[in-house]
Amino acid sequence: LYDKPCGRFAESDFCRMNEQLALPGSKLFYRDVRLGLLGGGQLGRMILRSALDLNVHVRVLDPDPNAPCARFADEFTVGDFRNFDTVLAFGQGCDVLTIEIEDVNVEALQVLAQQGVQVFPSAEAISTIQDKGLQKRWLAQRGFPTAAFEWVADTTDLHALFGPGPFGEAPEWHFPSVLKLRRGGFDGRGVQLLRSENDLQLAWDAPCILEQKVDIVRELAVVVARNTYGETASYPTVEMEFNPEANLVEFLFSPSSLSPELEAQAQQLARSVAEQLNLVGTLAVELFLTTSGQLLVNELAPRVHNSGHHTLGASHTSQFEQHLRAVLGLPLGSTGLKLPAVMVNVLGAPGHSGPVVYRGIEEVLRLPGLRVHLYGKTETRPFRKMGHLTVLAATLAEAKAIARQAQQLLRVEAD
Amino acid sequence: LYDKPCGRFAESDFCRMNEQLALPGSKLFYRDVRLGLLGGGQLGRMILRSALDLNVHVRVLDPDPNAPCARFADEFTVGDFRNFDTVLAFGQGCDVLTIEIEDVNVEALQVLAQQGVQVFPSAEAISTIQDKGLQKRWLAQRGFPTAAFEWVADTTDLHALFGPGPFGEAPEWHFPSVLKLRRGGFDGRGVQLLRSENDLQLAWDAPCILEQKVDIVRELAVVVARNTYGETASYPTVEMEFNPEANLVEFLFSPSSLSPELEAQAQQLARSVAEQLNLVGTLAVELFLTTSGQLLVNELAPRVHNSGHHTLGASHTSQFEQHLRAVLGLPLGSTGLKLPAVMVNVLGAPGHSGPVVYRGIEEVLRLPGLRVHLYGKTETRPFRKMGHLTVLAATLAEAKAIARQAQQLLRVEAD
Repeated sequence: LYDKPCGRFAESDFCRMNEQLALPGSKLFYRDVRLGLLGGGQLGRMILRSALDLNVHVRVLDPDPNAPCARFADEFTVGDFRNFDTVLAFGQGCDVLTIEIEDVNVEALQVLAQQGVQVFPSAEAISTIQDKGLQKRWLAQRGFPTAAFEWVADTTDLHALFGPGPFGEAPEWHFPSVLKLRRGGFDGRGVQLLRSENDLQLAWDAPCILEQKVDIVRELAVVVARNTYGETASYPTVEMEFNPEANLVEFLFSPSSLSPELEAQAQQLARSVAEQLNLVGTLAVELFLTTSGQLLVNELAPRVHNSGHHTLGASHTSQFEQHLRAVLGLPLGSTGLKLPAVMVNVLGAPGHSGPVVYRGIEEVLRLPGLRVHLYGKTETRPFRKMGHLTVLAATLAEAKAIARQAQQLLRVEAD
Repeated sequence: LYDKPCGRFAESDFCRMNEQLALPGSKLFYRDVRLGLLGGGQLGRMILRSALDLNVHVRVLDPDPNAPCARFADEFTVGDFRNFDTVLAFGQGCDVLTIEIEDVNVEALQVLAQQGVQVFPSAEAISTIQDKGLQKRWLAQRGFPTAAFEWVADTTDLHALFGPGPFGEAPEWHFPSVLKLRRGGFDGRGVQLLRSENDLQLAWDAPCILEQKVDIVRELAVVVARNTYGETASYPTVEMEFNPEANLVEFLFSPSSLSPELEAQAQQLARSVAEQLNLVGTLAVELFLTTSGQLLVNELAPRVHNSGHHTLGASHTSQFEQHLRAVLGLPLGSTGLKLPAVMVNVLGAPGHSGPVVYRGIEEVLRLPGLRVHLYGKTETRPFRKMGHLTVLAATLAEAKAIARQAQQLLRVEAD
């Protein structure tokens, strides 16, 4: 692949990109390439850490002047990445433009790409993913396994699907089903389980997708990176551990408990999605394993992702450095795990809003093989992502035990 | 130790420090503690990365407005850390003050400590180490094994030691010996091997120590951290690999090839030096293994150190995070290695000065298990430290082979 960097996309932007950036004597590594980043949250903050190592100059756009990236970017611009004019003006000062959030103005990205700014991932890939309706249709059309679904424009559509047909036909859809907002859902918001007729009153009167509720035994994710040469590298599958009592995700761990066959299938699926999207950058592919043993694609995110946080420390190359390598026309790094890893999100405690205090953190810092990553947010809110912990150990069982201890010790409360 | 944090030093500053910072409801972790850092080079830059994870607010003082820390510190002050008034003014705005270089104004640190600023390591520890004459005397007085030495004030003293005594006694010192400047030596500068009478003309006419040249089989280093509670944690010994042809250090690796007995002895030695110095922070203890199988202390550095760079990625807790934990009154983290590691310094090529270009870096980035850390310096000079590489692999032999490949591929030249 490296010998023929432009072979596969000879006529595409990828080729031009690499002529410009990756040849010997390039401007990379000594701060002359300006990388623009839309979004200045914790994901951006972790990208900035990696940018340090590669001497990459990063400009960040975020509406919040106190965003996690605000103090650490080479340049920080306060502005709305959803606004056409703002993104256009910001992007025109950049050589390469990328994202840490998918909810950005894609029309501006299209114009910028036409103007010669290297935009990764492409506006097409982002717009396909940022609308869950388009995303599901794209997956289904390409033959990727995914739960059956239907587009609904509003609650009228929704009621019609659960009611009898115009000629008295039996209803097409049955409870339970899952309703998802096509746009703007995030961190579990915008998803509603419809268990019965009664739950229809919880439905949004907005464009949604109605999804078949599948019986699953595991929730999984694969993070895959793809660079401007079309080279892909995927990380070992991550699995979510649920607390059986609370039915909540307790933590994520890797390697997963998948059989070697299913692991290979998950990796192949993720790489294939990235390739068919022609994606340059990082892609998180969330998967379900059904009770019948089938892997289904649940959702995509065209960026570094929570399910890859453990790669910071656990993997030879973190997803954050990998993303930079991918969009800057560099070879991808090793994705192997150094040791089994568990990742725990540090979430704001329910009922607490205000200046944050991390109770029990000293005790947590004493746990072996544990690292704390805080995101620099001064205010906590219920379930707000304030940081994460990673535990590495010789065995996964050991890492899980330490992660459970940490969860019991740490409470993110308002002062 | 944790149950009685103040037990051992009940009347000391350590106790007050922790009452102030480490108790529940402390100001740590949400950016209300201002940590001052004297020196803004690459060591500081890697400390800043770790400060991000713990939400620590860092102010940096360095004379160079383009120092590696300049863009990434919360606050960056241009000024000379060797100047009394500058350090005093800078330190008065800090809750805790630490260093990334030992050549700082210790008189100002003494005054600041009296004024209630928490200064770690102490002015006493820094001043003992920054003068190699005092450092050697301190080691010898405490009974630490170290090569025989003598203080010399100038070249007159030096000639006297190699000449006959006033009553015709045989000379006290013989060639070969090693002459070291007491102050200001760095990275091999300030050290002169005296092979014969002829080499005396290379001697500095300044305060030096004359050291016995010992026959050594290995050069080693142990990095140890000690926190405000007096808890110590040391990293597995690092060994230097020499190129037999060029007789130059090729790279550092860990774990070392020491026998378990010698490894334990090296660890004990390093911890004991840190304890007897009453040091809070990080200490690098450079060691020789002599042909007779004895470990000698060569030199001390009261700070994070080049021989601990592999800990960033190879260890559960990097030396940089460990240093922060130590000076901020936090528990120390695990020092175990995730995998065998090799560290290679990325040095400016001889004969090249000017804007830097990293030739071959794309090929280096393709090597498995390898990470590149550049320091953000725009200009290269012969042998200037521009960055470092770390290689992790399942076996040390594999990591060494990859490191050798990297060294052959990478050339740091002027554009």
